[in-house]
Amino acid sequence: MSVQSYNPTTGEVTPTGFADTSSDDVSRLCSRGARAAAVVANYPLHWRAALLDAMADALEDDAVTIRALADAETGLGDGRLTGELKRTCFQLRFFAGVVRDGAYLEASIDHPTDSPMGPLPDLRRQLEPLGVVGVFGASNFPLAFSVPGGDTASALAAGCAVVVKAHPAHPRTSHATFSALERAAREMDAPEGLVSLVFGVEAGVALVNDPAIAAVGFTGSYAAGRHLFDLASTRAVPIPFYGELGSVNPLVVSRRAAAQRATALGEGLAGSVTLGSGQFCTKPGLLFVPTGDDGDELVRAAATALAAGAGATMLSGAIRDRYEAAVAHLTAVAGIRPLATSATSTSAAGSFAALFEMDLATLAREREVAVTEVFGAVALIVRYDSLDELLASLAGLEPALTFTVHAADDDPDAPALLAAGRAQAGRVIVNAFPTGVGVSWSMHHGGPHPASTNSLHTSVGASAIRRWLRPVCYQGVPAAWLPEALRDDNPLGIPQRVDGVLRV
Amino acid sequence: MSVQSYNPTTGEVTPTGFADTSSDDVSRLCSRGARAAAVVANYPLHWRAALLDAMADALEDDAVTIRALADAETGLGDGRLTGELKRTCFQLRFFAGVVRDGAYLEASIDHPTDSPMGPLPDLRRQLEPLGVVGVFGASNFPLAFSVPGGDTASALAAGCAVVVKAHPAHPRTSHATFSALERAAREMDAPEGLVSLVFGVEAGVALVNDPAIAAVGFTGSYAAGRHLFDLASTRAVPIPFYGELGSVNPLVVSRRAAAQRATALGEGLAGSVTLGSGQFCTKPGLLFVPTGDDGDELVRAAATALAAGAGATMLSGAIRDRYEAAVAHLTAVAGIRPLATSATSTSAAGSFAALFEMDLATLAREREVAVTEVFGAVALIVRYDSLDELLASLAGLEPALTFTVHAADDDPDAPALLAAGRAQAGRVIVNAFPTGVGVSWSMHHGGPHPASTNSLHTSVGASAIRRWLRPVCYQGVPAAWLPEALRDDNPLGIPQRVDGVLRV
Repeated sequence: MSVQSYNPTTGEVTPTGFADTSSDDVSRLCSRGARAAAVVANYPLHWRAALLDAMADALEDDAVTIRALADAETGLGDGRLTGELKRTCFQLRFFAGVVRDGAYLEASIDHPTDSPMGPLPDLRRQLEPLGVVGVFGASNFPLAFSVPGGDTASALAAGCAVVVKAHPAHPRTSHATFSALERAAREMDAPEGLVSLVFGVEAGVALVNDPAIAAVGFTGSYAAGRHLFDLASTRAVPIPFYGELGSVNPLVVSRRAAAQRATALGEGLAGSVTLGSGQFCTKPGLLFVPTGDDGDELVRAAATALAAGAGATMLSGAIRDRYEAAVAHLTAVAGIRPLATSATSTSAAGSFAALFEMDLATLAREREVAVTEVFGAVALIVRYDSLDELLASLAGLEPALTFTVHAADDDPDAPALLAAGRAQAGRVIVNAFPTGVGVSWSMHHGGPHPASTNSLHTSVGASAIRRWLRPVCYQGVPAAWLPEALRDDNPLGIPQRVDGVLRV
Repeated sequence: MSVQSYNPTTGEVTPTGFADTSSDDVSRLCSRGARAAAVVANYPLHWRAALLDAMADALEDDAVTIRALADAETGLGDGRLTGELKRTCFQLRFFAGVVRDGAYLEASIDHPTDSPMGPLPDLRRQLEPLGVVGVFGASNFPLAFSVPGGDTASALAAGCAVVVKAHPAHPRTSHATFSALERAAREMDAPEGLVSLVFGVEAGVALVNDPAIAAVGFTGSYAAGRHLFDLASTRAVPIPFYGELGSVNPLVVSRRAAAQRATALGEGLAGSVTLGSGQFCTKPGLLFVPTGDDGDELVRAAATALAAGAGATMLSGAIRDRYEAAVAHLTAVAGIRPLATSATSTSAAGSFAALFEMDLATLAREREVAVTEVFGAVALIVRYDSLDELLASLAGLEPALTFTVHAADDDPDAPALLAAGRAQAGRVIVNAFPTGVGVSWSMHHGGPHPASTNSLHTSVGASAIRRWLRPVCYQGVPAAWLPEALRDDNPLGIPQRVDGVLRV
């Protein structure tokens, strides 16, 4: 089937010249990737870091083209896409730094010793690349979570090859960014097939099932992610599947915070809910606001700010239709009151933002509403009376990617709220909004199921590399035959744990 | 159903007074464990370390009873069990050290900064306990891989609660060791239910399916492990399942090594194959020996040493029967020549050791033989002519827990053999035997499927703790509300990565 490109602003559908990748071709690309991975696993760390830097450079060289294609295919706007391309290049260079740092290898050296168990031999351990990784690009970040995104960057940093399944919402952008990565790989004399690109739903299924694929990174909906996770887990040789899905991210405004800064919080909430047309997996979906005058003022400010919006272009007509159906469904639920809607964008996949209000009793009754993520610029404000009933309600929610608390200094309610968040989310935020996910050493993006299919690992930040590595232990191996990271003279100058003592 | 204890030396079957745990009781114990885990997650690290130390002390206090019960139930002998109890206590204290070291928390602090992506907020990340862990005791290590074994030790070290499913081959030993752990927990004022014990196949299934269980550690056969992995993966909320299964561990003797020390290697091989009646998942199963005089001498020495053995008691009559059926099957395969058998032990579950010989062509033809682990003291010697055909044969094997190379100094064949091992195994060993698995910072016990259901993590060694932890990121959280490990003043004195720089 030929691949088409949809412009959500104009509604225009144009042929791309690309075709869905056949299962045979997927198999061929995966096998080629396995050969490339076997070669690259033996390249020095500085080569791998330089490759990532070269890929960032290549994307920047093609920035004008890439931004234009991405804007045409997503309607996200040049401002957002300029920022996202910067983030994408930063991310590649950041992982070059992670590779150069070398701590990710978890190099550990135990010299022979006596122990209460008896003599222990010379044992050395490091992490080594898994092989070929399958990556599924996400619709909502056509750069940073797509072909040149965090999964690809971290997998290449680990020394793996990558086969990316392009998201159908931005095939041209996928191809243009892939071409930049491929050009950089060629310039670095990388083995053929270190990075490949495939198109189509069947190709995605073939990718997850391919014997050469060692692990999969996915960002997308729960339904698609769980389906692919099930495929990955039921293979003859099961493989790790890292699905970053989504969640109804709770946000709590404490009574004191509402008293201190109701208007600013209301406006901030509206901004976070409508950012990127609400098409973020970290969009706050359930906003817990105290009853009473301060809470009322906050809700009014949020409604006013949201109502002043012009609406926005969503990523596709299908996404817009699902969003509007979900909003219509909310409108029909007894106990859920519409508070405000924005204007509706007139673009082809244009829509509006919406805000609803309900109480804790309604939330408890409408379990589906409480746990169903709506992808788009809608949020439910939930009014609560007491901390105790709020905590009981929070404990009944499903785990999430993020949990946000707005609190005052020395807020007596904050510790209990933070504990609730810590128990149920991957990132706990105080006095900010969850919609920004910075790339850094300390970022964690993921959460207990259903936010992720694997809560032990992250898809953003330095430790995302850990998903593509497995430990190998060397026992009694002479220095000349040891990997460099495990030699006593530490030629790479990396952190090593030596006889139980971490050295940097 | 009432639980019975079998003595493999005498054949005696006696009632234990224990009964299979009902599904309701499993559910109750898991829920109680979840409450205990929530409490213990907030206890200081030094309490957790002291608990592990106290558990080691309690096991030592009960050593005489425990060793006697274990010997009666396994026939492994007091010497081996004395060593195994030492190892078990060492392992608990070792994990106390891992907890005190604190690096396992992966504490990372990023202060607010500007980046090419724009401003980044204050972000801090650490690993936090998952909750309640299910542990399946193994038959072949009634102490070190059973109730008080590495899974339990690492899960408690992580701050989790544990529900152990006792292995039916040693119920009394399971209960006695559990009682010691429980007494230590009581003395440390641990919350009720931090450690629980259940009996029976149905209880095991209920454990894997229980909503309160956050992860499972398992050591045992591929069939049982894969079945439970499938259950864990197809739950409404899938959970990580760490199955350490087994493998046909290849061992290669290079041509030069055979020339240098044929007799010693032959005797060493026989010793490694028959150690613990061959009931180790790391038993070398395929022994690649060069053709020619040196190889012949090595094979003769191995056969002579093995034939001189008295046979041994296996863990149960059923295990002995499966072992002897597998040996009979090998005897019937064309191209596989019986080389030697030991005497047969006269104990109730007594058996013999056996050694076979074949060539590479037979190995290639008899794929099932090449990839089927036989639990017991049997090994196949495979004779090879050239390095190239050996490497081709090795590449066709399935991944394994271990891969062993016996080589000479400056052996020209060693690098290629080590590369083959690195690609296919979790531990690569030079000039030693794989049957010892020391507990240390650098040990890795695990391997690509089918050796393990999860090749990214280990069941032995310091990093086994990583299986029971998930990252949590704190954004903009004031110092007073931060976990201690993430405070700028580092009150725990643990390694922290601060603004990208690892500090110890």
